[in-house]
Amino acid sequence: MDSTKESGDIPIPVTGSKSSKAAPPLVVASTKKSAKQPLVSRWKRGLGILDFILRICAIAAALAAATAMGTTSQQLPFFTQFFQFKADYNDLPAFTFFVIANAMAGAYLVLSLPFSIVCIVRPHIIGARLMLLVFDTVAVPLVTAAASAAASMVYLAHNGNSNANWVAICRQFDDFCQRVSGAVVASFIAALIFVVLVVVSAVALRRN
Amino acid sequence: MDSTKESGDIPIPVTGSKSSKAAPPLVVASTKKSAKQPLVSRWKRGLGILDFILRICAIAAALAAATAMGTTSQQLPFFTQFFQFKADYNDLPAFTFFVIANAMAGAYLVLSLPFSIVCIVRPHIIGARLMLLVFDTVAVPLVTAAASAAASMVYLAHNGNSNANWVAICRQFDDFCQRVSGAVVASFIAALIFVVLVVVSAVALRRN
Repeated sequence: MDSTKESGDIPIPVTGSKSSKAAPPLVVASTKKSAKQPLVSRWKRGLGILDFILRICAIAAALAAATAMGTTSQQLPFFTQFFQFKADYNDLPAFTFFVIANAMAGAYLVLSLPFSIVCIVRPHIIGARLMLLVFDTVAVPLVTAAASAAASMVYLAHNGNSNANWVAICRQFDDFCQRVSGAVVASFIAALIFVVLVVVSAVALRRN
Repeated sequence: MDSTKESGDIPIPVTGSKSSKAAPPLVVASTKKSAKQPLVSRWKRGLGILDFILRICAIAAALAAATAMGTTSQQLPFFTQFFQFKADYNDLPAFTFFVIANAMAGAYLVLSLPFSIVCIVRPHIIGARLMLLVFDTVAVPLVTAAASAAASMVYLAHNGNSNANWVAICRQFDDFCQRVSGAVVASFIAALIFVVLVVVSAVALRRN
């Protein structure tokens, strides 16, 4: 689209002496532009609304992940030589990081909603769009790192590792492991939505 | 910049009858544009060169991480009741994923170099730039997930976890742990470069 705009604007051979001859191409160019303008604007507004809806979904996913992980704890009714009475997210540093990162991502998403609304109301403001893209790009590795670190721990808790002599704790803490697995899935969904958000912002920037 | 371009083009009141009077604003607008064109082009070319250099650095980091993890193995000179003779990346699924993901990221980066060169030579081709941005955005969570899953395992290997009764294996496999930690750091550097690449691409798209 940009190439046609440029080819419509640049090659008009206007000099001071031949101004009366060169006017018609300008008229053609300006009518072309005004016909395209509302289409582009509507397209960008649609992208902005998609962005807003995705943000709401990502808030739900990130906060669900953080609360599911943060509120889960299981107390065993018996005591053995090897295991503690209780399992909660504080026991593993990866799970603590998971709660913090997902809560941060959720808070950022809530704070980003006004800027997303600005992008719907005024689709031609590029600064807000670019800012959202940069922060979303930073949020992608944050949420992914939290989710995958927790996922590797959940995998270890489920299966154990005979090479390192790490036992599977999920046989005892089955309820804890199930809720934690759900939280990890929710966090991966949030990360996926962040990737889609970055692509949506890039496409919206491209149409300028 | 786009707002000034639009304000220079749209409000010129040209009709067929008053073409001789309306010509001077067009002359002003077109001179403005031709003066700006090389500046924008040079700026975009600079961004393209930055993109290319960052890609070379990311290739080095990703492939170094993959090879460092993949070639590390340590054989212990003694045998105890709990530990195996040997430690290599196959023992932990997180480390296997780390090698695969970093090798994939390195291969993608090598394949993306021609497109990056296209963006330097022809800064106005938006398709290649947008394609690189989308694939870089997908590569960010891939590399981050691999690095953080491996990092959580390395942390566990270094410190163990008394709550889950997982022992620290790095007291025995100290050399293995050191090389694996280096690989994780290299992978995080690659992920950081990917984030910068996404931001560079977004800024380059914005200047169209």
